[in-house]
Parts: sequence; C-alpha cells; structure tokens
Amino acid sequence: MEDFKLTGVLPATFTPMKANGDVDYDKIDEYCEFLSREGIRQIYVNGSTGEGPSLTAEERMRLTECWVKYGKKNGRLSKIIIQVGGTCLKDSITMAKHAETIGADAISTLPPLYFPVATPQDLVEHVRAVAAAAPTIPMYYYHIPFRSGVNINMEQFLLAGRDVIPTLRGIKFSDKDLVQMCACLRTKDARGRNFNIVFGSDEQMLGAMALGADGAIGSTYNWMSGTFRRLLTRLDQGDLQAARLEQTRSQDVVKQVFAFGEKTNGTVSTLKVVMSLVGLDLGPVRGPMRELETKDKEAFFKALTDLGFMEWRKE
Amino acid sequence: MEDFKLTGVLPATFTPMKANGDVDYDKIDEYCEFLSREGIRQIYVNGSTGEGPSLTAEERMRLTECWVKYGKKNGRLSKIIIQVGGTCLKDSITMAKHAETIGADAISTLPPLYFPVATPQDLVEHVRAVAAAAPTIPMYYYHIPFRSGVNINMEQFLLAGRDVIPTLRGIKFSDKDLVQMCACLRTKDARGRNFNIVFGSDEQMLGAMALGADGAIGSTYNWMSGTFRRLLTRLDQGDLQAARLEQTRSQDVVKQVFAFGEKTNGTVSTLKVVMSLVGLDLGPVRGPMRELETKDKEAFFKALTDLGFMEWRKE
Amino acid sequence: MEDFKLTGVLPATFTPMKANGDVDYDKIDEYCEFLSREGIRQIYVNGSTGEGPSLTAEERMRLTECWVKYGKKNGRLSKIIIQVGGTCLKDSITMAKHAETIGADAISTLPPLYFPVATPQDLVEHVRAVAAAAPTIPMYYYHIPFRSGVNINMEQFLLAGRDVIPTLRGIKFSDKDLVQMCACLRTKDARGRNFNIVFGSDEQMLGAMALGADGAIGSTYNWMSGTFRRLLTRLDQGDLQAARLEQTRSQDVVKQVFAFGEKTNGTVSTLKVVMSLVGLDLGPVRGPMRELETKDKEAFFKALTDLGFMEWRKE
Amino acid sequence: MEDFKLTGVLPATFTPMKANGDVDYDKIDEYCEFLSREGIRQIYVNGSTGEGPSLTAEERMRLTECWVKYGKKNGRLSKIIIQVGGTCLKDSITMAKHAETIGADAISTLPPLYFPVATPQDLVEHVRAVAAAAPTIPMYYYHIPFRSGVNINMEQFLLAGRDVIPTLRGIKFSDKDLVQMCACLRTKDARGRNFNIVFGSDEQMLGAMALGADGAIGSTYNWMSGTFRRLLTRLDQGDLQAARLEQTRSQDVVKQVFAFGEKTNGTVSTLKVVMSLVGLDLGPVRGPMRELETKDKEAFFKALTDLGFMEWRKE
Repeated sequence: MEDFKLTGVLPATFTPMKANGDVDYDKIDEYCEFLSREGIRQIYVNGSTGEGPSLTAEERMRLTECWVKYGKKNGRLSKIIIQVGGTCLKDSITMAKHAETIGADAISTLPPLYFPVATPQDLVEHVRAVAAAAPTIPMYYYHIPFRSGVNINMEQFLLAGRDVIPTLRGIKFSDKDLVQMCACLRTKDARGRNFNIVFGSDEQMLGAMALGADGAIGSTYNWMSGTFRRLLTRLDQGDLQAARLEQTRSQDVVKQVFAFGEKTNGTVSTLKVVMSLVGLDLGPVRGPMRELETKDKEAFFKALTDLGFMEWRKE
Repeated sequence: MEDFKLTGVLPATFTPMKANGDVDYDKIDEYCEFLSREGIRQIYVNGSTGEGPSLTAEERMRLTECWVKYGKKNGRLSKIIIQVGGTCLKDSITMAKHAETIGADAISTLPPLYFPVATPQDLVEHVRAVAAAAPTIPMYYYHIPFRSGVNINMEQFLLAGRDVIPTLRGIKFSDKDLVQMCACLRTKDARGRNFNIVFGSDEQMLGAMALGADGAIGSTYNWMSGTFRRLLTRLDQGDLQAARLEQTRSQDVVKQVFAFGEKTNGTVSTLKVVMSLVGLDLGPVRGPMRELETKDKEAFFKALTDLGFMEWRKE
Repeated sequence: MEDFKLTGVLPATFTPMKANGDVDYDKIDEYCEFLSREGIRQIYVNGSTGEGPSLTAEERMRLTECWVKYGKKNGRLSKIIIQVGGTCLKDSITMAKHAETIGADAISTLPPLYFPVATPQDLVEHVRAVAAAAPTIPMYYYHIPFRSGVNINMEQFLLAGRDVIPTLRGIKFSDKDLVQMCACLRTKDARGRNFNIVFGSDEQMLGAMALGADGAIGSTYNWMSGTFRRLLTRLDQGDLQAARLEQTRSQDVVKQVFAFGEKTNGTVSTLKVVMSLVGLDLGPVRGPMRELETKDKEAFFKALTDLGFMEWRKE
Repeated sequence: MEDFKLTGVLPATFTPMKANGDVDYDKIDEYCEFLSREGIRQIYVNGSTGEGPSLTAEERMRLTECWVKYGKKNGRLSKIIIQVGGTCLKDSITMAKHAETIGADAISTLPPLYFPVATPQDLVEHVRAVAAAAPTIPMYYYHIPFRSGVNINMEQFLLAGRDVIPTLRGIKFSDKDLVQMCACLRTKDARGRNFNIVFGSDEQMLGAMALGADGAIGSTYNWMSGTFRRLLTRLDQGDLQAARLEQTRSQDVVKQVFAFGEKTNGTVSTLKVVMSLVGLDLGPVRGPMRELETKDKEAFFKALTDLGFMEWRKE
C-alpha cells in the first residue's frame, strides 16, 4: 500500500450482461484480454459505468471475484479497484471485506445514497466504517455530486479524514470544480504524501491534467484510451495544440454519446454500443436504462464513423 | 384488491435494532401490540422512517415476514404496505414477489435511487417492472423528490401508468406541491376509480386534508396518531380553529425533532427517541445517522415535556 | 399603521401597456373601475404580475402615482401596496420614499435580486434600509424563493427583524412550504401582534387558508376573485366539499394559464389575455415574455370556455 | 468591429465609492493610471465586480462616460466593454445606446435577471434587443449561471444567435463547464470566424487556457495580472510546472478572499480591500454587501502577507 498511486487513464469497466439481463461473468476473461490489447493495466469496477448500484450485493461480489481472477491471470491487470458504495452501509462493509479477502488492489466508495451526509465529519465517519472493513488496501472516495447528491467540500473531507481513515489514499473526482480538485492535489495525507486525485470527467480531462491531476478514471477509456494517452504525451511535450486536438476528438464522440443517451435514459447503453463497435459485445444494460433502438443504433454508428472515430481511435 | 383504499393516519414504522446494530426482529410483536393500543391498524414498512435503504435485501424480507406474522396475529393490523424500492431493480423485484407471497397487503416503491428517470414514461416502466412481480396486490408509488432526487409530475405519471400498471392504486405523496396532489386526487385509474393519494408531510397535513387528501402516512403517527385523529374529526366537523390547534401542537413537536435531528445527521434518531419516551424502546439507528448524546437527549425530553406533549398526546 | 392588516383576496395588478410597449398610465382609471365592480378594494402594485422588475424606476414611480390618484378617487381602493424591490437598493429607497410621499398605504420589497443574501440578518439589514425610507407605512417582505433565488427561513427573518424594522408588518408568502407559513403566522411583532401573512399561490390557497393564512395576494384575483371569495365563505361555514369545488375550478383555469404560458416564456401574457376576455384589455407584456399567437389565443379562449369559466366566474 | 478580439487578462473593474456610498467618479482617472502601471489595456465595466446591478441606470451611464473619458486619455485603455444587463430590458437598451454613443468599444449583457428565459431562442431574442441598440459595436453575452439563474447551453445559444444578432462576438464565460466552453470556442459566427470566448473563473484559468480559451475576465486581474501573465507565458512555453505555481498562488489568495468574503455577504468587499493594499483605495461597497470589520481586515492583510502575495505579485 506504501506506494500505491493511480496515474494515466483507467477505464471504469462495464458489466457484461446476457440477453436476459443476467450478469455474464464468463465474458470477463475476454474483456481482460481486450483491455490488455488496448494497453490498459488498471481498472475501476462496479462504478457508475459498471452499473454497480443496479446490481445485487451478491452479483457485485461475484463480479469482483471474476475481475480479480481473470485480471490477475498472466498479470494482465496490475490495479483493480472495487467500488462498494450504495444505500446500505452493511452491504458496503461486506463487499469491502470481500474485496480485500479475494485480492482486489483497492476499494472505493460512494457516499451513502439515500440518507445524505451534511458535513465533512459525517462523510468521514461513513468512509471510515467502509475502509475499516478492508484495512490493508487503499480507499478512494468516489466524489460525484451531480449523481450522488452529496457535495461536501473535498479538501475539508481529506483534512478531516486523513488522521481517522488510515487507508484513505485519494479521490475519484467526478466534478467540474477544478479549484477544489487543485486544493485536494495539494493536501497531504497523514504520512506526508500528497493525496492521489484521479479525475472523472473524460471530456474535459485536458483542463484537469494541465492543473495537475494525477490520472483519470472514466468510461470512454474503455475504447478511447489511445486518444487520451496521446493527449497526455502531447501535454507533457508542451504541444498544447496537439493535445487539444485529441480532447476535441473525444468531445465530439462524447457529444454523440450524450445525444443518443437521451433516448435510453442514461449513457451506459450508448457507451456499451461503442464497445460492440470496437469488437467486444457486452450485452444490454439494466433498468432504469434502456437499449438503443436499431435505427438509432445505426444513426449512432454513422455519427461516430463520420467523425473518423474508427480510424483515429487506433492511431 | 377491488376496494383497497388507505384512509386516516398510517405510521411509517421504525425498524427495531439491537445495541450492536442488528435488526431486532423479535421486538416487532411488542411493536404491534403498542400500535394496537394506539388505535393503529395500517402501517407502511421499510420506508424512510424504517431505514429501508439502510437494510440489506435479506433483512428487509425477514422484517416483512415478521410484520405480517405479528401484525396479522389476532388481526391487529389490517393493512401492511411494504416498501421495496432502492438502487437495484432486481432486488426490488425479489422483495415485491416475496411480499406478495408471504401475505403483505400492498407494496410501494421509490424511484430508482442512483440512475434517475427523466420522464413519466421511464418512471412508469420502472414501477411496472416492480409491480408485475406482485400482480395480486396494490402498488403505491413513493413520491419523495427532496430525498430521491426524482421529481416527475405525478399527474402525468398516473395518466401514463394507469393502463400499463394494472395494480397501480395510488401515491405516497411526500412533497409540498399541493396543487399537484390535487391533480392526482382527481385522476381516475383504468377502472374509473379515483387514485388513492396519501399525504406524507405530517406537519402540514391539515392543509392537504382540507384540499381532499385521502389519508396520511408519516413517522409521527407512531406516537402522535391521537392528535391527528382529533385534527381529522375537527376538520370534518368544520371546526377549523380546533383542527389548527392540533396541527400547531404537532408542528411544535416536529420543530424540536428537526432541531435535535441536526445533531444526528437525520431525524430518525430523534423520532425513535420519542418512541422510547412513550414506552417502546426500539434501539439505535444505522449510519449515516447517529445517536443523540445523553445531554441532548435530556434537552430534547425537556423540550417535548415543556410543550405538554406527554399530556396532550394521550387526550 | 396601528391596525393595518391585509385579509381576503388582493389582486397583484397588471401594468397596462400600449401596443408599442410603453406604459399606458391612463388606463389605470378604467382598471380601478373594473376592480371596483369586481368587489376589490386592496391591491398589490409592481409585483411579478405587474412586471415591476421589467419597468424603469421612473415608470414604477409614475405608475404608483396613477394607482394612488385613481384608486383613491371616490375611495375605490382602500389599501394600495407598492412593491419597490429590484437589484439596486438605492432605487428601492427612492421608490419607497416616493410611495410614502404620494400616499401609498404600504410598501413591499423583494430581496436583493442579483447579489443574494445568505442569512436572516443580512436580509433584515436589506429590508430595514428600504423600510427606513418610508417610516410611516407598513412594510411587507416579498418571499418568492423560486423566482428571487433567496430562500431564507421566514420565521427566523421575522424574529431577527421585528426589533430592527419598526414598520415590518408581514410577508407576501409565495412559497409552498406551509409549515414555515404557519410558523410565521404564530410569530409576534415587537408590539405583540401576530405578523400579517398573506399567501401567494392562488391554486393551493384553500390549503393555506385552512392552516390559518390571513389573506391571499395573486394574479388570478384580478379576474377570479368571486370564486375565491366563495371559497373563503364555504371554508368559514365548514363546507369543505363546496370550498374544494371552487379551488378545483381555479386549478383547472390556472393549469391552462401555465400550459399556454409555456408558449410565451412566462404566464403574465396569458394572465393578461384573460383580462381582455373579461372585459379589460391591458395590452401586451414586456420582454423577456412574449405574446400568445392568435391561434394559441383562440385555443386558450376555447379551453377556458370549455371549463365554464365565463359562467362560474360571475356566480 | 471586424477584428475585435479579447485576449489575455482583462480586469472587471470595481466601482469607486465615497464613504457615504455615492459613486466616486473622479477616482476613475487615478484608477486608469493604476491599471496602466499594471500593464492593463482592456477592461470590463459594470459587471459583478463593479456592482453594476447595485447601481442606478443613471450612475451606470455616468460611470461609462468617465471610463471612456479617462481610459481613452493618452490611449491608456484600448478596449472598454460595458455591461448593460439587469432586470429591465428598457434600461439595458438605453444603456447600450448610450455606451455606443459615447465611444465604448463593446457591450455585454446578463440575461434578464428576474423573469428568466427557458430556451436558447428566448435568450437570443433578449440579447438581440439589447445588441440592436448599439449596432456598431460588438456584443458579448455574460454567462454566469450560478448568479443569474439562467443556464442555457451556450453552444446552442451561439448557433441560434449568430444569424440573428449581427454584432454577437462572444461570451464572458463565468462557469465551470469547460466542455461547453470548448464547444463555444469551436463555433463559428455568421462570418466564419470563431466566436471569442473569455473565461471568467480566475482561480481555474489555467485549465480553461489549456483547453484553448481566448482570454480571461475577472476581478483578481485588477491586482494580480502579473501573476496571470506569467502563467500564460509559462503555458505557451510548455512549462506546465511553472504555470501551475502561478495558478496555485492565485488560488491561495482567492481562498482567503472567499473565506473573509463570508463575513461580508459577498467577495467584492474583500476584493476591494486588496486594492487598497496595493495602493488604490476605492472605498466601500453597496448593500447587500458589507465592509470587513477592522480586526478582520487586519487578519486578511496578514493572511495575504503570509502567502507572500505582496512580493510575488510584483515579480
């Protein structure tokens, strides 16, 4: 745990489903192979992209087992982070303990989803209770206020939590407030290391990385990681113009994802469609999200093709 | 199901807990006895007051079994409604089926709690899927936008849902928009009956009942049902002045509940304290809520006593 | 000022406009005559209905002069309240002083509209500054959080303000939080009188009056005051069923006002159309609101006629 | 107007006040001299920093005259943009016409502040009406949703407005949604030029500039423009580490501005205090904002000094 640090781009994985809506656990081996080919070695499991909150606790734990089993096979994945949050702290504790036991590399948790917390201290107490169930692996808080409804100041959370949660290592920061993100980046944990802040809004990642974010977790890194790795290289080289080109390309794609996502009550469905387009069919989504109708699927394919996505994603 | 209708006041029940945080299932027999003495025959189980979302699916189902078993003993309870909503539709379906199987009288569901729905149609589809798992008992949608984050127009929901969800019977309406409530009251279901609208904000119940609400579900009806029954009688008799007195009393109490609730990250804790004050100790709450500290508990007791609550609650 | 109290129904007046968008000051004489015939003796000027914030300070002052001049002619109006709020405190002070000087009966103010206030104390200071410019007439705070963006707890405002603002007499309460309204109704001013709380949401007025509101200010009282007076009479007589009928009628009309208001970026346009339908043409609205197109106007007329509005409004 | 483009850093100017709260027009000559010394040649007048909405229309016009008169003296300022928005379109039109007449270089407008607009089309119509009053100078829409309450998608606004508002040149973009900002940057106006997007959140300016923003307007550029110019130079040179240092410095200062701003109901008061600290006393603010108390002023001075602000601001 000493040197655990997330950098670069990490996909938030999808959950493979069968046509009948059951989780397709066996598919994960193939998914790991796909990610390997894409150059991915770190993943975030059972988050929003993975429809974590739409799965039962049992399904989430079995998924975790499969990700660890297949991901660690031949060392394909080096860091597997398991999201264990939901409405029920007791379930989160069970899942956290399980993740540690079966060999996950880190855990992450949403805030409590129904009864909110109003202060940094109450959030710390919640995250502490989850983290204590997996005391040997790092904990990342999952900050996504537009979805969770909990918008505690993250710098204050880190300051209040660092001495109380020994395993607190950082934040999956899915919010547009980059000032707050910068403040977190400069906050030190109990051992004097900077907290590890991983940004979660793919389509403005360049802004966050310019400001110093350590890395990025998101859904489009499943099928557009090359684009973003080029972006990071260009940024490192000081070639902003070239970095912006990559960001622009990704924004064009994400704009289509959102536009078609309005037809499916959420974007996971359209995001999964892109997976099948790039070679890995992961099946349908769960309610309350819906599938794209065939004609919309075709229009969506066409829109991405017109953007040149199929070409430049492989550059 | 033909004539199923909720009227009068229904407590949303608390979930008895042991000191270690486990559910205290055995306590429910005594709780049913208590409710009988208070003149209560209808209850709403596993809602917000019952910390439903803080319980595991298994706990919720075992609680349902206990409520049915003890509630139906000697016919103490005539209507037991089980709330089955959460973040995971699959869990809701399992709980709905279970509730019907073991003899609950009706079910109720929150909207999906993490991935929201944006249109009446998407909400209908969600509620339909849950209702279809318990096709012989009525379904009540649980409308509580300030907590669930889903604020679909309820009249439009009923109109879109009545032909699609055969068992849709009404709404637990926990919102302050009384105009929308009135519109729902005047909406007819597929069989031409008015939908059954039960109001969920105890402290402005008089306003809702004057406008025609059918009944009321809430937490304070656990220990203040007499007050509200007097309110309803006075309103029926056209004695508004006397009805307002009862509403005022309840508002004074609820104000204290909220004031002290700020110290416990939510009001369930303070509401449960009142239960112990009136004779039934139901134990602690679950995180993210906290217990009142002893000195605050004493101050809270004093505040209620100063209001004369212990006397007029028995009138 | 000793016994100043608003009761019953008060229209928030429209501002008559010429076809070119200029204020049609001369029309106010006829408007006063119309209101007299409708049995109205109290009005609220330059509020939202009157497009106060869309008028220049000079126009607002000249309008005030006309309302006082024509309203007091033959004693047609007994209470004229002038709303003087906006973004600029200096303008508000000028208008408050002017209102008092030329003989208005009371003033009212919105919170500051651009730079918000965050505490009851800061709101008190703002209202104090306005009230001090008209120290001999009552001040009513205009609480309309969904529009002003300022949602200070009104009970706390009254408690903080009563000793600091000698003329503070009450609130135009345009919000759906009836619990807060009840708390205000029970709050006493510095002289030991209850504050005067006038409710501002016409379509759920029955709920507010059942809970004890003193009166009601709104736009539909311009052309539906008879309906609401009958509602109040029925409520006093304890005939809730009959009172609800009147509320239902008004809700049906308001529903159409809102439905067609979506075509005009706000409801003042449709509300004014009803004025012309009942005999007084008050001209167009100002931007950002727009006029109903002819075909929509006809559809709106038809919708109201189908509801029987033209008949029962005269009952 | 052909080549009008805002780049680099532009201060949103403060409005000098006398101790009695009157505008101190004569101070503007000295203020222009100060800005010259700071290397500033472009300014934004009567915006939020300038307390535009707290000034009367007359005061705003007289201020505009002084800024043009003193700013153009010796060519000290090359671009003077006048913000003319408020609640009253008629006032905005008067001020727009006046600004053009007396020689301002561009105008800018907020959305209507009381009656909101709900669609890009309605916003276009409002901005068009204002722009048409000053047809020979560029118009910049002032997008500041957290304050104005109007959050129309800016790309859609530009697309809907470019053929309708001939002078529409760009946006003062005061929001954290950098994806939307990028979309605006790539949108072309009727003549095929990219729109001119100027970012308005000083403390995350590096993120916006990395993503390609054209320039930045803000309050801290009054006294920290050197810091930000260095930031821009470092960014151009590809030295992100050095650019971040400047951003961090500014964030540290802004954090203090906000912390002390909580004591004065808004930050203009603390921002003005810094002006006096760097050599130009601009007097008090207007209600609803308040002055820092002496002891807080001292603590604020100390906090800035401890940060080394007085030194590095002159680097």
